[in-house]
Amino acid sequence: MNKNSSNIMALAPSTSNKRETVCIFGTGDFGRALGHKMIQSGYPVVYGSRSTQISNLIPRDAEVLSHAEAAKKAAVIIIAIQRQHYNFLTKLADVLHGKVLVDISNNLKLNQYPESNAEYLAQLLPGSKVVKGFNTVSAWALQSGTLDASRQVFICGDDVEAKQMVMNIVRGLGLTPVDKGSLLAAQEIENYPLQLFPTWKFPIFLSLGLGLFFFFYCLVLDVIYVYIHENNNFSFFIAITVPNQVFPAMALTLFGLVYLPGIFAAIVQLYRGTKYRRFPDWLDKWMLCRKQLGLIALAFASLHAVFTLVTPLRAFSSWRTSRRIVSQVLNNQTEPLNHTNAWLSDSYLALGILGFFVFVLLGITSLPSVSNSVNWREFRFIQSKLGYLALILCTAHTLIYGGDWFLNPSAYKWYLPDIYMLSLVVPCAVLVVKFVLILPCVDKHLTKIRQGWERNPRYSE
Amino acid sequence: MNKNSSNIMALAPSTSNKRETVCIFGTGDFGRALGHKMIQSGYPVVYGSRSTQISNLIPRDAEVLSHAEAAKKAAVIIIAIQRQHYNFLTKLADVLHGKVLVDISNNLKLNQYPESNAEYLAQLLPGSKVVKGFNTVSAWALQSGTLDASRQVFICGDDVEAKQMVMNIVRGLGLTPVDKGSLLAAQEIENYPLQLFPTWKFPIFLSLGLGLFFFFYCLVLDVIYVYIHENNNFSFFIAITVPNQVFPAMALTLFGLVYLPGIFAAIVQLYRGTKYRRFPDWLDKWMLCRKQLGLIALAFASLHAVFTLVTPLRAFSSWRTSRRIVSQVLNNQTEPLNHTNAWLSDSYLALGILGFFVFVLLGITSLPSVSNSVNWREFRFIQSKLGYLALILCTAHTLIYGGDWFLNPSAYKWYLPDIYMLSLVVPCAVLVVKFVLILPCVDKHLTKIRQGWERNPRYSE
Amino acid sequence: MNKNSSNIMALAPSTSNKRETVCIFGTGDFGRALGHKMIQSGYPVVYGSRSTQISNLIPRDAEVLSHAEAAKKAAVIIIAIQRQHYNFLTKLADVLHGKVLVDISNNLKLNQYPESNAEYLAQLLPGSKVVKGFNTVSAWALQSGTLDASRQVFICGDDVEAKQMVMNIVRGLGLTPVDKGSLLAAQEIENYPLQLFPTWKFPIFLSLGLGLFFFFYCLVLDVIYVYIHENNNFSFFIAITVPNQVFPAMALTLFGLVYLPGIFAAIVQLYRGTKYRRFPDWLDKWMLCRKQLGLIALAFASLHAVFTLVTPLRAFSSWRTSRRIVSQVLNNQTEPLNHTNAWLSDSYLALGILGFFVFVLLGITSLPSVSNSVNWREFRFIQSKLGYLALILCTAHTLIYGGDWFLNPSAYKWYLPDIYMLSLVVPCAVLVVKFVLILPCVDKHLTKIRQGWERNPRYSE
Repeated sequence: MNKNSSNIMALAPSTSNKRETVCIFGTGDFGRALGHKMIQSGYPVVYGSRSTQISNLIPRDAEVLSHAEAAKKAAVIIIAIQRQHYNFLTKLADVLHGKVLVDISNNLKLNQYPESNAEYLAQLLPGSKVVKGFNTVSAWALQSGTLDASRQVFICGDDVEAKQMVMNIVRGLGLTPVDKGSLLAAQEIENYPLQLFPTWKFPIFLSLGLGLFFFFYCLVLDVIYVYIHENNNFSFFIAITVPNQVFPAMALTLFGLVYLPGIFAAIVQLYRGTKYRRFPDWLDKWMLCRKQLGLIALAFASLHAVFTLVTPLRAFSSWRTSRRIVSQVLNNQTEPLNHTNAWLSDSYLALGILGFFVFVLLGITSLPSVSNSVNWREFRFIQSKLGYLALILCTAHTLIYGGDWFLNPSAYKWYLPDIYMLSLVVPCAVLVVKFVLILPCVDKHLTKIRQGWERNPRYSE
Repeated sequence: MNKNSSNIMALAPSTSNKRETVCIFGTGDFGRALGHKMIQSGYPVVYGSRSTQISNLIPRDAEVLSHAEAAKKAAVIIIAIQRQHYNFLTKLADVLHGKVLVDISNNLKLNQYPESNAEYLAQLLPGSKVVKGFNTVSAWALQSGTLDASRQVFICGDDVEAKQMVMNIVRGLGLTPVDKGSLLAAQEIENYPLQLFPTWKFPIFLSLGLGLFFFFYCLVLDVIYVYIHENNNFSFFIAITVPNQVFPAMALTLFGLVYLPGIFAAIVQLYRGTKYRRFPDWLDKWMLCRKQLGLIALAFASLHAVFTLVTPLRAFSSWRTSRRIVSQVLNNQTEPLNHTNAWLSDSYLALGILGFFVFVLLGITSLPSVSNSVNWREFRFIQSKLGYLALILCTAHTLIYGGDWFLNPSAYKWYLPDIYMLSLVVPCAVLVVKFVLILPCVDKHLTKIRQGWERNPRYSE
Repeated sequence: MNKNSSNIMALAPSTSNKRETVCIFGTGDFGRALGHKMIQSGYPVVYGSRSTQISNLIPRDAEVLSHAEAAKKAAVIIIAIQRQHYNFLTKLADVLHGKVLVDISNNLKLNQYPESNAEYLAQLLPGSKVVKGFNTVSAWALQSGTLDASRQVFICGDDVEAKQMVMNIVRGLGLTPVDKGSLLAAQEIENYPLQLFPTWKFPIFLSLGLGLFFFFYCLVLDVIYVYIHENNNFSFFIAITVPNQVFPAMALTLFGLVYLPGIFAAIVQLYRGTKYRRFPDWLDKWMLCRKQLGLIALAFASLHAVFTLVTPLRAFSSWRTSRRIVSQVLNNQTEPLNHTNAWLSDSYLALGILGFFVFVLLGITSLPSVSNSVNWREFRFIQSKLGYLALILCTAHTLIYGGDWFLNPSAYKWYLPDIYMLSLVVPCAVLVVKFVLILPCVDKHLTKIRQGWERNPRYSE
């Protein structure tokens, strides 16, 4: 909310003469952007460059000197040059001895080199104190001052004091330093800005595939079948009716898939009689993306909720109401209240709302700041107890929605089951197996295994 | 979102030979799980054990030695044994001198021993540097790698350097260390994983009690009364109609209860003429759970909103619409628009939506990450000004919903008031007293007291 | 959620004799409140005061001595006196030499003095180690123990060890210290508690102005025009119908205004041929409040969504349905389904829901804890790609809602366009210019500029 407040201070002139000089090697885009920002924040900046001619590109208040001269003027030197050119720094080893070198470089792809750029720099200049940092910040954002995104700057390094100096500069620029430990963390920090939602890739592709399948399945049954057999053109169903069958089916199936790997893991452990063997790779990966699957399921459930709520606003819906009432009048009869229908309609709505409500609670607790404020026991309680409660409520909602429709032959157009029946497969399977797993005899055994007991301790892994 | 990214690096082989050896005393479940994780992250691990026979339970890449030999190999020793067996460590005092001992033990209940386990360990081995940590992490989560929950590891200790070493190991495992200060914080850290929503207990029990009362009250008036006196079976009202009377009543009453203790506190201070005396215990406790009460009220308000929005989808509702229109047609008359009704219906809906909207804003600002980014003045503004605005809007919504119905004798079935009247008691009382408290003469006095003024400064506490 | 857990421990008696004595200079309100809290948390407290008579205002367990004697008893001295009285401390320079002085003072307005109070104190007593802290905490909150708001205490200072000592005390009180770097940050920390949503001021005033304009515009067209020309009193439209035209218009216009400055910035850079010149001041300020504009737009969009969903619950709406159906019956005809209408109604609803859904996603990612967990590349993806997607969906929703109504002369009451047409101006302008900017030829040029290329490098700034 209030993140930009620090800018007020950063620009205050009274502090500009107290900051210590910072040296920047390299006058490329990021070096210049960082220099601009530092001068704005009151740091005297001196550039080290091959050509000491003052280029117009460089901030006006900055000095430009040769590398060696510039390095002498500051305790902290920002290395804003590319890894390929690090070699030439070895000639300056004497001048750079004991100085804090800040490696701000990024690579073009993940794990491009065997060792991180910062570790490479530390090997080249063993007498200097190398600190990794600033690479996760965007030059464009530094320049324009619009740091709406994360203000966190990841820092790592082996020398604690050197790290403190760099962290103070980071704070001086109005950013938040995050200590990531020793220089070993540099590779991780260098990989970080290259990622684009790595943990979301599989869940999103899975959802896309499943979504397309459900969409065409539903299109065939609700639009094409009706067109062919009843000669009704309900093509406008594509906008709301079809999505509102696909979304709940997606939500329920994906929600089931969140709990399926836990079921598999339990079965694998029961079968092997130990917890000290790795799960198969696919199961490991699946377990690591449960949170993402759950959030996508929640998104579809939300869409389903809103698509359902707008139903009375549809032209089709008001036309149907009119037709129903007009036909009642013309037949000169008032339909009595069907109590069974009233029960079914009210209870499937109520179950759906309650299930969605618990699901939203789960979603809220998965926000980083909320999940950080609960302990492990509380987290397990929420994700496991509340999670299964939501799954049970949503499955019951779908079962009651269907009612005894699945017994009706007309539910099987072209011998295909309705989409709501398909969506029940995974959650029902999960709930049935889970019910078996919590039977006391099975549960006791599983708990023992999870506490470290082994059936065949001699088993050579 | 992207929390698992660190795993990529942790498994990279290139770093495995650079980490310093860690020694683990004890081969119990947690010791083994931690060892597995450390080996995965590139730390050489040596176990100290009574029996130096290599058990199959221990990770394959780990060495197993006697306690003394193992301790000599590492600067950091993880004490993965139970507090009852700490005594035997005194024999190793010489070997452990100057070493960093990490106490990872947990107790079975809150404040089980007079001093924390870590402090007890520090007393036994005054020559070693004891650091508390890792006890808030689950062995199961370490093992399976699925740390969806908090990655925070609370650390405390008296030696800053020892703490740094342990924090670096924590970071090396892909977790986030949180410095909780000196070893005095160990008891708090040991209590932490044993808690299960301690601040939520009272609010949840209160809501349950209140909810059951409202439910049966409403059941009697809306279902049983109707069945007896009008011979109508509206049992399906249990699914939606009754809850949708209970939820708003709960929401409004609990919302009133959030602001009631503040009112009491002001009255107590005005009466005593000082702020330097503790409030009665019940008031203190009540004030500490206002946030939880507010969030539960918000949950009920949300349920009320959705239960209201699904009304047009109910079979009962469409039957009622049909009946109304058919009867109009049969009487051959079109009802004219009742302007008073239109005004009442529109304004109670609008007030409800606006009140709910402000209430949701309050809920969002109570998210830890949002409330951390506002200062005290802003927080007071939101919670006090916006909070009372929401309360006024919601109370007005309920008042207009009732209209002049409370004057109608038929509103009092079996001489009992409607549930909406009950729900108005607390919020109306709060608003009336608050109105008195903000009268300039009272407010001035109260402000003086809150700034430290005392009516009877000689008052012997 | 669980923030108050630390209180349990803080009050435990077993630790009370282990904490180091803290000295507090000054017995004003904040000094007393802090003393109370420290004693509660187990710190022995000694007050330094001009009058050594024990006042009843001071916590009972605290000692009261002269300034010099009190200072000798503790390593950390909290300076709870006002800046105007700092002078007298110079007489105690000898006693205070080497001590940690914690400046907790606040000013009455932003940047009241040329240097911060803490820096002023450090100048007066160069032999002491000055640490700034605690000023962001409320005395009232410390006293009552109800720290629902931020538990963060900003700390800064030049001496690392002194800072550590103060941070440990902060942790001992159950609060969270946040290191803000060297003493230069003191002015920022002193300004912090005085702010009241500084970045929200402009967006809120803009929204208020725009909202009032739209409201009266809509009132004239929907209520006054109808009253004059059709002699219908639809004054109750003020509650729902009019707001539900104003809210979407506000949402769409403000959402357009979020992306407009980015468009301007691109044009300015293309025109100047460089990114190394500051934007005009108004553009800079506008860019800094885009997030706030977006969140306000989201608030209006949410209100629009709920106001739309309650439509079927309105008395007016049910009267209109009755009238429509009764007139159909009396004319003895059933209207056939209008397929074009069904298409239009369904697709504008679906587009609105999807647009709102993406918009809510944007809102969730702007939560501090979520935006901190994505990297810059991911943040840009969300804010730029998803943002434009939401804008396109919402604009399309409004266009289809209007349909060909804008061609109908009766849409122009008093020659004024409908409000939905006004709301389309900004987003359509943004989308058209953006479309030009992403044409390959323009985009390539712009990308080059943003990577640091300049058209006239000799250009003297």
